[in-house]
Amino acid sequence: MAKQKKSEAMVLANVGLVGLEVMGRNLALNMADHGLRVAVYNRTVEKMQRLLADHPDTPGGLVGCATLSELVATLKRPRVIIVLVKAGTAVDAVVEQLIASGIAPEDLVVDAGNSLFSDTIRRERQYASQLKFFGSGVSGGEVGARFGPSLMPGGDRSAYRRLEPIWSAIAAKVDPATGRELLGANPGHPVQGGVPCTAYIGPNGAGHFVKMVHNGIEYADMQVIGESYWLMRELLGLRADAIGDVFASWNRGDLSSYLIEITADILRQRDPVEPKRFLVDQILDTAGQKGTGKWTSTVALELGVPANAIAEAVFARFLSALKGERVAASRVLKGPRRRRLVARRDELVRAIRDALYCSKICAYAQGFQLMSAAEAIHGWDLDFATIARIWRGGCIIRAVFLQRITEAYEKDRHLQNLLMDPYFADRLRKAQTSWRKVVALAAENGISAPTFMSALAYYDGYRAGTLPANLLQGQRDYFGAHTFERVDAPRGQFFHVDWPHPDRPQQAV
Amino acid sequence: MAKQKKSEAMVLANVGLVGLEVMGRNLALNMADHGLRVAVYNRTVEKMQRLLADHPDTPGGLVGCATLSELVATLKRPRVIIVLVKAGTAVDAVVEQLIASGIAPEDLVVDAGNSLFSDTIRRERQYASQLKFFGSGVSGGEVGARFGPSLMPGGDRSAYRRLEPIWSAIAAKVDPATGRELLGANPGHPVQGGVPCTAYIGPNGAGHFVKMVHNGIEYADMQVIGESYWLMRELLGLRADAIGDVFASWNRGDLSSYLIEITADILRQRDPVEPKRFLVDQILDTAGQKGTGKWTSTVALELGVPANAIAEAVFARFLSALKGERVAASRVLKGPRRRRLVARRDELVRAIRDALYCSKICAYAQGFQLMSAAEAIHGWDLDFATIARIWRGGCIIRAVFLQRITEAYEKDRHLQNLLMDPYFADRLRKAQTSWRKVVALAAENGISAPTFMSALAYYDGYRAGTLPANLLQGQRDYFGAHTFERVDAPRGQFFHVDWPHPDRPQQAV
Repeated sequence: MAKQKKSEAMVLANVGLVGLEVMGRNLALNMADHGLRVAVYNRTVEKMQRLLADHPDTPGGLVGCATLSELVATLKRPRVIIVLVKAGTAVDAVVEQLIASGIAPEDLVVDAGNSLFSDTIRRERQYASQLKFFGSGVSGGEVGARFGPSLMPGGDRSAYRRLEPIWSAIAAKVDPATGRELLGANPGHPVQGGVPCTAYIGPNGAGHFVKMVHNGIEYADMQVIGESYWLMRELLGLRADAIGDVFASWNRGDLSSYLIEITADILRQRDPVEPKRFLVDQILDTAGQKGTGKWTSTVALELGVPANAIAEAVFARFLSALKGERVAASRVLKGPRRRRLVARRDELVRAIRDALYCSKICAYAQGFQLMSAAEAIHGWDLDFATIARIWRGGCIIRAVFLQRITEAYEKDRHLQNLLMDPYFADRLRKAQTSWRKVVALAAENGISAPTFMSALAYYDGYRAGTLPANLLQGQRDYFGAHTFERVDAPRGQFFHVDWPHPDRPQQAV
Repeated sequence: MAKQKKSEAMVLANVGLVGLEVMGRNLALNMADHGLRVAVYNRTVEKMQRLLADHPDTPGGLVGCATLSELVATLKRPRVIIVLVKAGTAVDAVVEQLIASGIAPEDLVVDAGNSLFSDTIRRERQYASQLKFFGSGVSGGEVGARFGPSLMPGGDRSAYRRLEPIWSAIAAKVDPATGRELLGANPGHPVQGGVPCTAYIGPNGAGHFVKMVHNGIEYADMQVIGESYWLMRELLGLRADAIGDVFASWNRGDLSSYLIEITADILRQRDPVEPKRFLVDQILDTAGQKGTGKWTSTVALELGVPANAIAEAVFARFLSALKGERVAASRVLKGPRRRRLVARRDELVRAIRDALYCSKICAYAQGFQLMSAAEAIHGWDLDFATIARIWRGGCIIRAVFLQRITEAYEKDRHLQNLLMDPYFADRLRKAQTSWRKVVALAAENGISAPTFMSALAYYDGYRAGTLPANLLQGQRDYFGAHTFERVDAPRGQFFHVDWPHPDRPQQAV
């Protein structure tokens, strides 16, 4: 046994992994499942030792390293080191230590945590002479990391050639014919075949940017599901399990997705404490968050992209967190009398489904607009068809729906907005009446539906050839001399009027 | 003449003003109107010379300074210097030059531009040993600066004593009995009496923060007016002047405000080019912005405050800017068939008024929540009654309505949310049916009304003792083991369930 260990240690490892919290541990095991020999390191050595003890015979093998110098010495050159530590200063600390441990300029360091894309841009530049710094989005939670995540790598394209085989091996796989994920959560026996859910995204921060947008869309996806659930409960009086059945039926159609699927599971789950009850009814309604939805909304504000449905999903979480205030307000602030709508159950369930679908399209459209705006600023060349393709499996927002987005961008690489794709435009045309009805019912019955409503305002605003911003520009010119353009003059020609004295002539500025 | 000039120059000036663009020029004249001797400087000397030539005999007198050293030498000590240059690096450049020009540690430098509050916090600290750095919000546009702005100063309280007489003199004045601004746009003859629209806001960045929130509210205020205008036009087919008449009538009631007043003016204004038309119909519907609304929304995201109505107003401007895309989309994306509602004109005009009023309350509530959150973080002690009071005159959002907000916070200094004030809660109770009807009509008729809708979602969310965030926490625990709290367990106790294996017991974490 001791002898075997020694000889094993002489074989250099294919890849290193720094940071053995749940995501790092699972990525290491995923790589080892694919025959890669993985050198693993964690600041607290016990975590590394426990991982090795729990998994003594993976196909590729794990090599425990007590120091980063040992990790560096254990790796084949040029090295590939995956870092999975808390986003922020911890990433820089690890990189600095790797530099001090003898890493070479051609070595690849891949930050696979949830780093802010602008940090990745900065790090790539900062460490350029000492190593190849990569930022890769990793989505799929614990299970994804273990058995196949969606991977969004950004960095130097030529260096990516060395990461590509590893990332393609461990990524989720999708059936190219159906667009559905090939599942195989079986330790030691990964999925064979299929199209891997990863592709080179672009230079420097592009991978982390795309992951951030993914998370913003995820916020909206979860919120539209929440609003659907709540409308069924509040308007139709349905029980949790009945609503779960509705989601299960939706999961068989074109809404089929991981989030809809787990929603059905969750709603039908009994309370382990008291199986007469449903667990969801016992969960406190205060949503947590780790901040990536905030980032997406902040970037939308910075870039001037009207991503209101995504932002509303973030604000809805903030509002949910004010539980004490809400309970107090519920006793003071009056709502309308609710209508009894139980008799229209089937019609309304279908209408809610349409509202969810339409709102979801708008949230995705906003996410892709955001990537489009960032692409222009950062000089990336994002392939939206590919991005939708690698989101079909592994990640939290994986859905059959994404196949349609891929097709939309394959048909027209320069599609100006997802809403303008003929397939989605047609779906919106057919479903909008129901969507409008649901928004009207929510408003009239006092049920908060911020993403359904904001997505509708976005849709109606986007398709409005004229909007009331003419009045707004008049106001701005009135109080601040900010000038305006005219519909009957060329763009870029600005006018000012001395509004309180309308007899004075208009001035071209 | 030459002799007179010389002797005048020997009298030291009371206050200095750096930066003579329109806002700086007008503030200088405002101060001179109040008998203050004002030393003025501008990087381009011609602007300073023109100002002096145009205004040879103000009550206080202007003293032209060709250099900052001259300005420093011309001022009584301890000096008070107002800086009105472009926000950003220009402010630091001026401060550095003032330091190089011999300014003393007890001298006051007041940044009266639209600086980001966090820059003001940083500058106060950075220059603490060299001068007293103040940040003051100034609202009111050109006219406000000239005849009475609303002023929101933040900085060292003891140093404020020297700014206070100047700020109180030049600020707008309000009739204490009615809460209405005392108007007197008469050069050389400022308003006498009344309550000045300024007060010490708090340390370091507090003044600029409050000004930023003012601007965010202003965005929402303008957007709810725009939505009202558009609904009257699109649902009722009213002409611009008829809508102007409606706003003029609203301006006589409790919506009475500067923005409603100028909206009536704007809508009734004829096109100077072709007086048969209304000017508003000739203005291009693409809104510009200078970024302070973005800041407010970004800070809301940072602080976790659900300020969705303010953010929607910002997003609506972004959407308006996509004129070309919208025109293209208007030919592709279908809307609903519009109902003819002309017969219900009077009823609907009243309902739109209620929707505006309710949405406005929500936007203000969100603004005050934002200040409340910032107060806690930055250790400020903001007096909300006073803040509402100094917004009653001078600034763009000045309105009779603010008197009610002052009263609300006077009654209860620790009011948790403006919506919870008995007066506003009652107004919302009475007006909500109309508000809901307007949102439903906008949805059903395809008219984008993002702030009406988001404000309603906010109201219904805030008064909801329970929200669907329970499902959301279930989802987060399902895919990411993020845990949840239970309604039947103490707050702060977290649970995790192995969702795909419901037979396994719930774990306390």
